[in-house]
Amino acid sequence: MNDFLSLAAQSSPERLALITSDVEITYGELNQRVAVLSSRLDAAGIQAKDRVAVLLDRGLASGELVHALARLGAVIVPLNTRLTSTEMRWQIEQSDSRWVLSVLPAPLLEEAILLDDLPRMGESDQWLGSPLDLDADFGILFTSGTTGKPKGAVLTWGNIFWSATASAFRLGVLPSDRWLLTLPLYHIGGLAILFRSALYGTAVVLPDYPGDPFDLEQLWRKMHNADVTLVSLVPTMLYRLMDRYEKEDWPLSLRLILLGGAAATLKLLRAARDAYLPLALTYGLTEATSQVATTDPELTRLKPGTVGKPLQWLQVSIHDEDGQHLPAGEIGEVWVQGPMVMRGYLHQATGNDWLHTGDLGYLDDEGDLRIVQRRSDLIISGGENIYPAEIEAVIRQHPAVTDACVVGLPNLEWGQQVAAAITLRPDASLDEKSLLSFCQQHLASYKLPRQMVILDTLPRTSSGKVQRDKVIDQFSRN
Amino acid sequence: MNDFLSLAAQSSPERLALITSDVEITYGELNQRVAVLSSRLDAAGIQAKDRVAVLLDRGLASGELVHALARLGAVIVPLNTRLTSTEMRWQIEQSDSRWVLSVLPAPLLEEAILLDDLPRMGESDQWLGSPLDLDADFGILFTSGTTGKPKGAVLTWGNIFWSATASAFRLGVLPSDRWLLTLPLYHIGGLAILFRSALYGTAVVLPDYPGDPFDLEQLWRKMHNADVTLVSLVPTMLYRLMDRYEKEDWPLSLRLILLGGAAATLKLLRAARDAYLPLALTYGLTEATSQVATTDPELTRLKPGTVGKPLQWLQVSIHDEDGQHLPAGEIGEVWVQGPMVMRGYLHQATGNDWLHTGDLGYLDDEGDLRIVQRRSDLIISGGENIYPAEIEAVIRQHPAVTDACVVGLPNLEWGQQVAAAITLRPDASLDEKSLLSFCQQHLASYKLPRQMVILDTLPRTSSGKVQRDKVIDQFSRN
Repeated sequence: MNDFLSLAAQSSPERLALITSDVEITYGELNQRVAVLSSRLDAAGIQAKDRVAVLLDRGLASGELVHALARLGAVIVPLNTRLTSTEMRWQIEQSDSRWVLSVLPAPLLEEAILLDDLPRMGESDQWLGSPLDLDADFGILFTSGTTGKPKGAVLTWGNIFWSATASAFRLGVLPSDRWLLTLPLYHIGGLAILFRSALYGTAVVLPDYPGDPFDLEQLWRKMHNADVTLVSLVPTMLYRLMDRYEKEDWPLSLRLILLGGAAATLKLLRAARDAYLPLALTYGLTEATSQVATTDPELTRLKPGTVGKPLQWLQVSIHDEDGQHLPAGEIGEVWVQGPMVMRGYLHQATGNDWLHTGDLGYLDDEGDLRIVQRRSDLIISGGENIYPAEIEAVIRQHPAVTDACVVGLPNLEWGQQVAAAITLRPDASLDEKSLLSFCQQHLASYKLPRQMVILDTLPRTSSGKVQRDKVIDQFSRN
Repeated sequence: MNDFLSLAAQSSPERLALITSDVEITYGELNQRVAVLSSRLDAAGIQAKDRVAVLLDRGLASGELVHALARLGAVIVPLNTRLTSTEMRWQIEQSDSRWVLSVLPAPLLEEAILLDDLPRMGESDQWLGSPLDLDADFGILFTSGTTGKPKGAVLTWGNIFWSATASAFRLGVLPSDRWLLTLPLYHIGGLAILFRSALYGTAVVLPDYPGDPFDLEQLWRKMHNADVTLVSLVPTMLYRLMDRYEKEDWPLSLRLILLGGAAATLKLLRAARDAYLPLALTYGLTEATSQVATTDPELTRLKPGTVGKPLQWLQVSIHDEDGQHLPAGEIGEVWVQGPMVMRGYLHQATGNDWLHTGDLGYLDDEGDLRIVQRRSDLIISGGENIYPAEIEAVIRQHPAVTDACVVGLPNLEWGQQVAAAITLRPDASLDEKSLLSFCQQHLASYKLPRQMVILDTLPRTSSGKVQRDKVIDQFSRN
């Protein structure tokens, strides 16, 4: 098998690959552009299997860069551009990235090489299709971290291939499909769209608002102007769009809204149903290369809240705290197995072949999955996963603090909002403003606590575990 | 990976699998039925890797039987039910088939086991999903034969998988798709539809006219009543349908007509274009698990006659008689390579990895394939491949005959019609009627010569090769 782009260029060169407001680029044309870029990356010294950290937006250059790295056989390490430079450097180090490339005009990291600074090559220097090994590493995406730091999920090309194929059979795929890239490329939900579409030979519509996924006016205009058929949204986005626009005004071209990244409230689902929006609810995670289970619009209407059956080739199993398998209807931890499940985390032995998601859910009598709670400690705000342990570790470094517990508070628009309960040293004091400015030195802005409460002690179980639900109660009392 | 049906039953049990006039069976239900049938086949003694010759129609029992054999890991050898019993027995012997099963009420072979005669099992005896090895043999389908006898093409599950996936990306697939099974299950074009649909989790509409694919009134009614979205036709069928029905009356549900099996005339393509029929032209062969190249409707309109670009993962290359690669625009033999290409022919060493199709064609500047002529000697009549060598061998056995050359004459409705040029022993004589009755003892009716001409000598090249084009001229002179 060759790299997806060169296959698409061979089997459907005339189909559209990338669409911006200015240009429509076919797979044939994209293949040529990527061939040139690949030879420039090669000239710069990037080799197969090199891990390459990248700072991407959602513009044309980003699309070309990830395809070019794929062609060279390099391993893509996309950095969340909302992180602080300290956080980024930690991920670069952890992933042993030999290179840092940026398509952003104002680089967030001084050591990043800008695309413009790569060697210029003649037109004839073209790196055409490369053999692709499904067992080879595709990329490293940083995700959860119960121990205070994100973990790098190592995904393979096989993960991407099987995920894309199963997604096609669940959602359908049409040669005329146009998928709007609403999600950032540093999330698997965004990055997978590029490669999935190349495999299908279908088009990706790039936003004109490369920086901010939440510029909904642009998103709305783009859906209409580019005849978008598929769009991935997080509940916050859908909520705002439905709030702002009339249901009659949604684009007729839209055949599916893939709603994921966080739980949608029943209220939102009912409103979407009443507006006849073609909603596919999905539960996914980076470690499973995005979708694990996805509904079709009919199931979303019939059983609002379910995320449907596991995708083709994926097994989902529910287990109790001792690892015992639980029957239908009983809530337990969601385990996942299949060819879309990552090779493993960086620097960790890959244990058994079941991925323990940490999320709680159950399979109903019909085999449909319901997620009751994402990882008990996970906070999802505006589609971004936030791991309390990471924030708690920062807060504990503050000289006035003895302990901290970070939780997510319900928020209609963002889903959840970060809040911190803190215990202080005797006679010490701390206000929200100084805590915030302390945190800002170490944490991306979306992770910063929006509320704070000072407690005498954190509520704990007899075994010493912090009771997060009781911490949350403290905020509602305020 | 499990067998396709059990995967579909797991990931989309509520989707429709098989639709007849009487029942609509979901993948969950079909899985249960096949589980029971599999245990009956197992009780009868059929084991994994057993080659099982089957006489199928296009009814429910046939659909269940092929899935049940797949579940047991048996290798399917579908017999062309239009063959004589002598021809069938030869194929059974050639394929070392240990079993002959029939779903037909009046068995064409006395040794065939009827499904009704299989052991009855309790409801609890169910053979649920089996692991599927993509490297394992899927089936043996008899096809061409330049040496006088058909050859058995050995196809693997990998062939089926990659063909189905590439077809999905070329034609698109929607969860609501319903593919009308117009073609017989002893052809790959029919058989592949069953397994492709199971992989996609989409529905197959079974005809109510299981015997005769050319019962077009039934076909027409079925397309309308069952909201068919995809239908595979051979040019003869399309010609007749367009002749009989108004263009306004084609079903609105139809999103694609896959036209293959033989070359379509430009006249037919233009008429279809004027009727706005969504025509996808395909070139395929048994040895490549059906489709090699397929157009989409837009390309069919823009470049009538092209069969488009090779499917994903397939390579097509054009070569001259010495095996030298030819550039774009030059006509030569079509070579094909890729994961859909068969393991090889029975009893033949698998040579190099390029399949030499024997068909003549060229790739144009845009990479689209045009087939100029199917294998120089191949006759295609009503979608059935007919190999002159096989018929010639029979005719030569007639006591009055010294030599014979069988050719296809152009026929507006059937595409081609079989004709035989014959040379006789001195003083011998032979009329059409007695030749026909002689041939009927050995050959299926669709292979019988419809015209005959007696020549003093067959026209030959200086090297002694019969000049088929000159033989064809003899008929137009009559």
